[in-house]
Amino acid sequence: MHNYSLTGNTGKALSVGVLGYTGYSGAELLGLLQNHPAVRPILLSHRKADEGAGLARPIRCHGTPAEPIPEVSWGPEAVSEHKLDLVFTATPPEVSMEVIPEVLARGARAIDLSGAFRLSAEQYHRWYNAEHLHPGLLKDAVYGLPELHRDAIRTACLVANPGCYPTAAICALWPLMRSELVDRSAGIICDAKSGVSGAGKKPSSKTHFVEVYGNFSAYGILNHRHVPEVLNNARLAECEFSFTAHLLPIERGILATHYLRLQRACRIEDIYDIYRQAYGNCDFIRLYAKGGQPSLRAVNGTNFCDIHCTLGNDGKRLVVISCIDNLVKGAAGQAVQNMNVMFGFEETAGLI
Amino acid sequence: MHNYSLTGNTGKALSVGVLGYTGYSGAELLGLLQNHPAVRPILLSHRKADEGAGLARPIRCHGTPAEPIPEVSWGPEAVSEHKLDLVFTATPPEVSMEVIPEVLARGARAIDLSGAFRLSAEQYHRWYNAEHLHPGLLKDAVYGLPELHRDAIRTACLVANPGCYPTAAICALWPLMRSELVDRSAGIICDAKSGVSGAGKKPSSKTHFVEVYGNFSAYGILNHRHVPEVLNNARLAECEFSFTAHLLPIERGILATHYLRLQRACRIEDIYDIYRQAYGNCDFIRLYAKGGQPSLRAVNGTNFCDIHCTLGNDGKRLVVISCIDNLVKGAAGQAVQNMNVMFGFEETAGLI
Amino acid sequence: MHNYSLTGNTGKALSVGVLGYTGYSGAELLGLLQNHPAVRPILLSHRKADEGAGLARPIRCHGTPAEPIPEVSWGPEAVSEHKLDLVFTATPPEVSMEVIPEVLARGARAIDLSGAFRLSAEQYHRWYNAEHLHPGLLKDAVYGLPELHRDAIRTACLVANPGCYPTAAICALWPLMRSELVDRSAGIICDAKSGVSGAGKKPSSKTHFVEVYGNFSAYGILNHRHVPEVLNNARLAECEFSFTAHLLPIERGILATHYLRLQRACRIEDIYDIYRQAYGNCDFIRLYAKGGQPSLRAVNGTNFCDIHCTLGNDGKRLVVISCIDNLVKGAAGQAVQNMNVMFGFEETAGLI
Amino acid sequence: MHNYSLTGNTGKALSVGVLGYTGYSGAELLGLLQNHPAVRPILLSHRKADEGAGLARPIRCHGTPAEPIPEVSWGPEAVSEHKLDLVFTATPPEVSMEVIPEVLARGARAIDLSGAFRLSAEQYHRWYNAEHLHPGLLKDAVYGLPELHRDAIRTACLVANPGCYPTAAICALWPLMRSELVDRSAGIICDAKSGVSGAGKKPSSKTHFVEVYGNFSAYGILNHRHVPEVLNNARLAECEFSFTAHLLPIERGILATHYLRLQRACRIEDIYDIYRQAYGNCDFIRLYAKGGQPSLRAVNGTNFCDIHCTLGNDGKRLVVISCIDNLVKGAAGQAVQNMNVMFGFEETAGLI
Repeated sequence: MHNYSLTGNTGKALSVGVLGYTGYSGAELLGLLQNHPAVRPILLSHRKADEGAGLARPIRCHGTPAEPIPEVSWGPEAVSEHKLDLVFTATPPEVSMEVIPEVLARGARAIDLSGAFRLSAEQYHRWYNAEHLHPGLLKDAVYGLPELHRDAIRTACLVANPGCYPTAAICALWPLMRSELVDRSAGIICDAKSGVSGAGKKPSSKTHFVEVYGNFSAYGILNHRHVPEVLNNARLAECEFSFTAHLLPIERGILATHYLRLQRACRIEDIYDIYRQAYGNCDFIRLYAKGGQPSLRAVNGTNFCDIHCTLGNDGKRLVVISCIDNLVKGAAGQAVQNMNVMFGFEETAGLI
Repeated sequence: MHNYSLTGNTGKALSVGVLGYTGYSGAELLGLLQNHPAVRPILLSHRKADEGAGLARPIRCHGTPAEPIPEVSWGPEAVSEHKLDLVFTATPPEVSMEVIPEVLARGARAIDLSGAFRLSAEQYHRWYNAEHLHPGLLKDAVYGLPELHRDAIRTACLVANPGCYPTAAICALWPLMRSELVDRSAGIICDAKSGVSGAGKKPSSKTHFVEVYGNFSAYGILNHRHVPEVLNNARLAECEFSFTAHLLPIERGILATHYLRLQRACRIEDIYDIYRQAYGNCDFIRLYAKGGQPSLRAVNGTNFCDIHCTLGNDGKRLVVISCIDNLVKGAAGQAVQNMNVMFGFEETAGLI
Repeated sequence: MHNYSLTGNTGKALSVGVLGYTGYSGAELLGLLQNHPAVRPILLSHRKADEGAGLARPIRCHGTPAEPIPEVSWGPEAVSEHKLDLVFTATPPEVSMEVIPEVLARGARAIDLSGAFRLSAEQYHRWYNAEHLHPGLLKDAVYGLPELHRDAIRTACLVANPGCYPTAAICALWPLMRSELVDRSAGIICDAKSGVSGAGKKPSSKTHFVEVYGNFSAYGILNHRHVPEVLNNARLAECEFSFTAHLLPIERGILATHYLRLQRACRIEDIYDIYRQAYGNCDFIRLYAKGGQPSLRAVNGTNFCDIHCTLGNDGKRLVVISCIDNLVKGAAGQAVQNMNVMFGFEETAGLI
Repeated sequence: MHNYSLTGNTGKALSVGVLGYTGYSGAELLGLLQNHPAVRPILLSHRKADEGAGLARPIRCHGTPAEPIPEVSWGPEAVSEHKLDLVFTATPPEVSMEVIPEVLARGARAIDLSGAFRLSAEQYHRWYNAEHLHPGLLKDAVYGLPELHRDAIRTACLVANPGCYPTAAICALWPLMRSELVDRSAGIICDAKSGVSGAGKKPSSKTHFVEVYGNFSAYGILNHRHVPEVLNNARLAECEFSFTAHLLPIERGILATHYLRLQRACRIEDIYDIYRQAYGNCDFIRLYAKGGQPSLRAVNGTNFCDIHCTLGNDGKRLVVISCIDNLVKGAAGQAVQNMNVMFGFEETAGLI
């Protein structure tokens, strides 16, 4: 266990490299790291990650900007040269697969924000249409949802940061599924809706403003790359899981509405108690236990996952709604949370 | 059967009164009636329906605007004085209940866009927190979904124009439910999303721009006034129906995602055939039978209901998505469609 | 003068080719032509104009769609083969410059929606960074703002359809500038704001939803390609004209705010009288002469240009605001208006 | 001068009351104060300021929320009872006028976010249609734009926090107007555009989502309450100032485009040098001196005012664009900045 100080200038800060800082997740990550009290970020530039550099930006009149983040070209030697303790890869999976073994070989730890290390080699092949380059690494990768796997994350060298939809679905489903309360034979439905930043920064007709504004559409119906990640982690064995994604005409946020049937009639407090037991030591899970209307406004810009439950009159039909900011709890914020767990910081450091 | 001509100036136009023309549905209705080839609309002003009058608007330079719509004060005598054949009431249910018996007593027919005549008296009492004033009229009211009840609408004196959510849900579910294909024991889920115009024109904190913009929220979870209307009309007997509404940060449109389980494995063409059989003579139902991504853009501003089906790999899990413009097929357009059926016009007159 | 009938099936319809129908202006044009009572449109496909074809769309259950628009490959011979009376080019200027001489040589007339024929050869070279391919044609091209040049448009073979910003600016300024009322020495300012569809359909980081949503920015400050078009047509000789463009985070609409100083104190009615005299026979200019708040909502989806004037307390400072839909009056609608003038139809045919 | 510590738990925190914390400015202010390292905020509830209390919100599973902000009922005695050093009034001007004399009489200082103390008594009467209740206080009120009046703010008991539009206009104009460079006879134009939060939280048809979404409109043309505030503070004597406001369909941000003429031809660097001289010690002014496109995205959520200048080819026409977040630099952020100046904190404390 490392021993970094959070209490000011005397402690040695963690040296953290960021690869792929120009995409939406990477930029969000950079902003969080700049505000983190114990981290010294270094940009690792990569041939595929330089778009948008050089755009003129406003600068202060007195010419003394905040200390800029140092930038170096990525190469495996950067790990030792810059004494990197950790590298974040907010890169496409094919880049992550190439870079991460080099990071680990030089003794740094890694948090990968892509889908490269979340699935089995078979699943990866099916959903990404490509062979996994390092299947041997997959058994060492810890799935980085701290609410489920905090202990394993503490000592992991490689953390596979969860996808945005899976974070929303797993946080909502896992406590219920590990109880014996859910009627598995009835199947489980996840009707998910995401803002456009989830589609990435690359311009396309699907993200053209005129195509999205005032519109709403469904996609990935019963056929989405994120499904196996949920299946692997939410204890859904022998349970039909139906997932559908929708594109919200907003910048960010995921609201996922889940439909389940229970084995026996419950009261709403019974349900919330299950969540309280599961997440009692978790700072980033909040419950709408006293009513209220779940909305993205309450989570956007934060690392919270809000959970709202409704029971039907029969006490057996259950609707669970989870809300996250797809770029924070669904990507960069969760990556920082994982870093905090890995290096013994307060889990909320730099996040609240 | 009336005998109105659609072919020009010689035919006598239908004289149609509109009560409640300042709300979103009423204004949309007025726009459609102005473009209808066989209708002469008359505004019926009501003490509760004058908001926004008097706002200065741009006028043409040459001072010869299109002939304005005549406006008279509402009172039962207006029916005979102005020889009204039909009155649309785009008014709150308590106003509709007061006005419509007077309309019918004077010999005109009526299409009510409120919820006043869609439910049983018991249902009305429960969901509107008020006694129904004319329960005796309910048995004569025909539910105005022409795709289901065209024949009854033809001769009806009082048509209860469907609600927006029920239109989307019933159009999606009715063909399947009248087949024997659906596994009723599995329950049916309708996860519906609507634009803000569905919440009406009255300003409130829930429709304040700043509260809605960039936001997305769920409401009416397993507890929405529109549910009994779906139950009454979509052949859902002995079937658990779970409905949840969500507020989209856009002006208009409803996309409703339905989850069903089938009794036996099917191919997608089997499913679409069921819709083709049910709606083969319907001009306003369109199917995404060749793939594609269902979206509100394709229906907004039109009277179409688009339907998109997806089967799971097992051939038994089925997702049906229906899209409508809540102000057109979900309100004013369907009201005009009902008028066309009632008075023997082409069903598409003024709508395509 | 041609003699096409507007009164039904007996008259021979105008045969109209459309080149470049997949962009925003072209698609808008196609929609207008389909509703035009005297036009038979034909799609002219071009190697650069086929994006988006093949996307699955919803179709009616009964399989009898509205008669589809015929599509043929563009080549000069298409003009005679399909007896085209008119070709619209909603194409990039380099395509328009290539195609239009071929259209004219085969005896059809042309309306070009690009900037290819709006400027002098020198101006074109400067603002489009390319030599004009047919400078000899420029003297025959009539600038297609019917409110200014109706007579010349009637007999023109080639009409250069105005740009969107210039339409808004010229409609606002021309009546005042041809009066002697304006103090030219004070300069004239046009602060213009446009929706994103004005930037075209090609995806780029500037039109990415996430970049535009919730944002507002200025561009082309004192340096915009549309300025010479205004200077050529709004009688701005010897008058400093300062133009700035801004990007509105909406789909469509231009609101342009103009600031002028008058030679002598006036009353607001004097100002509106100048517009009434200039536009007394114009169906598409509307004035806010009775107060009210100018807004895009009043013009979007229409071919109107709304004009709103405000005088300062001194009677000499004047603010003129013009509003148009950039895709209608600023592009496709004005193109149809020009067609109506060229072929002797009612100027409003297919537009109101 | 007070002597508060910024360095941790030992120092005595500033005790700060907030009156009117449910409006948009007040809520923004509360968020900033909660993150401020040296402030202990106390909510002062007022009969007109309790809307929205009681709405159910999500809470953490472990039931140990961040320490809640204490809330007490407002009454003059609260100042001494709770040892308030400072009271912020984010209230309507009539409430501010009533409360602030009571605050000052009890020995606390005050920062008023309303328009109550920004104008002369005569100006107030004209623009707010009401007599000023305490005209004698106006001479003591310091206009709280720290970039202009830092020294006076340091010792002020009552700071009148500037309006949002005036902040944008004055920051852009003041450095130029105090130079002798501007041709005052040419007049100055400010074409300003603001997000909807500037219109306040009270629901009305003007802020209804459906009315604003996809729309853009002008208002207050040459007749806006914020004009005298600019005239009083931007050295505009003997200079015609034309101001027009526009409503952007977004949540927040003001972009104001200013048009000026210079006495003599300049280079763009000359202009930026004027800003550098004026704002050389200012942390919250940034310049686009190296090009780039001014946009609200760069300032929203921050206390920065970005300034962008463009000269015409003649070197004499000048366009200055200023961008602020209307709720931060235009309201709550500037109020915190004023507090920092008044109490000797770092001017950027809690703001960067």
